[in-house]
Amino acid sequence: MAKIKTGKAVVLLSGGLDSCTCLAIAQDQGYECVGLSFDYGQRHRVELEAAEKLARTAKVADYKVIPVDMRGIGGSALTDSAIEVPEQESVGIPVTYVPARNTVFLAYALGWAEVLKARAIFIGVNALDYSGYPDCRPDFIEAFQNMANLATKMGVEGDSIIIETPLIDLTKAEIIRKGISLGVDYSKTTSCYQADARGRACGRCDSCRLRKKGFEEAGVVDPTVYI
Amino acid sequence: MAKIKTGKAVVLLSGGLDSCTCLAIAQDQGYECVGLSFDYGQRHRVELEAAEKLARTAKVADYKVIPVDMRGIGGSALTDSAIEVPEQESVGIPVTYVPARNTVFLAYALGWAEVLKARAIFIGVNALDYSGYPDCRPDFIEAFQNMANLATKMGVEGDSIIIETPLIDLTKAEIIRKGISLGVDYSKTTSCYQADARGRACGRCDSCRLRKKGFEEAGVVDPTVYI
Repeated sequence: MAKIKTGKAVVLLSGGLDSCTCLAIAQDQGYECVGLSFDYGQRHRVELEAAEKLARTAKVADYKVIPVDMRGIGGSALTDSAIEVPEQESVGIPVTYVPARNTVFLAYALGWAEVLKARAIFIGVNALDYSGYPDCRPDFIEAFQNMANLATKMGVEGDSIIIETPLIDLTKAEIIRKGISLGVDYSKTTSCYQADARGRACGRCDSCRLRKKGFEEAGVVDPTVYI
Repeated sequence: MAKIKTGKAVVLLSGGLDSCTCLAIAQDQGYECVGLSFDYGQRHRVELEAAEKLARTAKVADYKVIPVDMRGIGGSALTDSAIEVPEQESVGIPVTYVPARNTVFLAYALGWAEVLKARAIFIGVNALDYSGYPDCRPDFIEAFQNMANLATKMGVEGDSIIIETPLIDLTKAEIIRKGISLGVDYSKTTSCYQADARGRACGRCDSCRLRKKGFEEAGVVDPTVYI
């Protein structure tokens, strides 16, 4: 049995399958969790509504949505309406990559963690499924953690913060199995890059394909509602 | 004579004396500069107006103001009206320190740098005058640069980005002398934490005291208008 961790943790919540599992893992480890989401002009607005509902259901100690203006910067299909969301497997770094997104998200999480004197930040990045995103790799996370401990008052005063990435080496099927074992209700999560206003998934984008395959491989009935 | 640098650079501009000098240095080195400011709910709103004017005067290639919501996070006298701006020398990390502020600012700069394929990010941090701020120290900057090159598409593809801190080891007097030699008009900058609506400085806060002493030590007439 894993050692029970004490103290606060900031958990990044997108409303998707991964971050929801991440929250369940953090709570299971014993952390008092707060949830943090970002309104970054994402096309898939339904995710944000899902994130808030999931946070409330999990009874987090606090929940915030921070507006993050990445549209002015541009450069991604997820925030720039001039770039199309692809419906086929992409090669190299996908066009859905948002420049420095995880760096910006983790920076805000770090600010909140410092105010709360939190011990950990949980982020549901995954190096297997999203190997095309540079800011989902373990060496990025390690470098961020190193920087974070030099950036902050708590770091200077000897209280280090840990960036926890419990999903980083798991397949989608393993993530789903883990979440099911912790009682996660995946019908409340949404992963589609272009879900409709009622939260129904397209079933065709990168994110939908990965999720669908995950449920198949996990041998779990896919609770996703498709268009 | 310094080697002329080519390519683009993102320069963080606060409207203060340091960042304005930083922009002049970056342009003098040959970079094609863009200016980036943050509206983070700072009490000293006049700085933001000064930043835009300085950017236009310096004829930057582009200029953006990104809204950054740090008020929700709290924890600093600069963004939280419940904490008073001190008028005497502070010991340790000052209450004007905003948790993870430079990490958040540099993260956005990194995103824009990646979209622009910029070669450098300039930030006017200074380790001498602001030794109390953990995110103004050279080892933080080095750790951020290391992280930045793992976070981004350009880093992965072998084009590294440099975080330039030309003021980091300079005294305020040395910064002023450098700026004067590059033709900087300091009457257009504002550094006061609590300037009035007309941009007049209080003359008493930490930032005012450092600036005043800098002009005295540089032997340059202080062009600041005080209340």
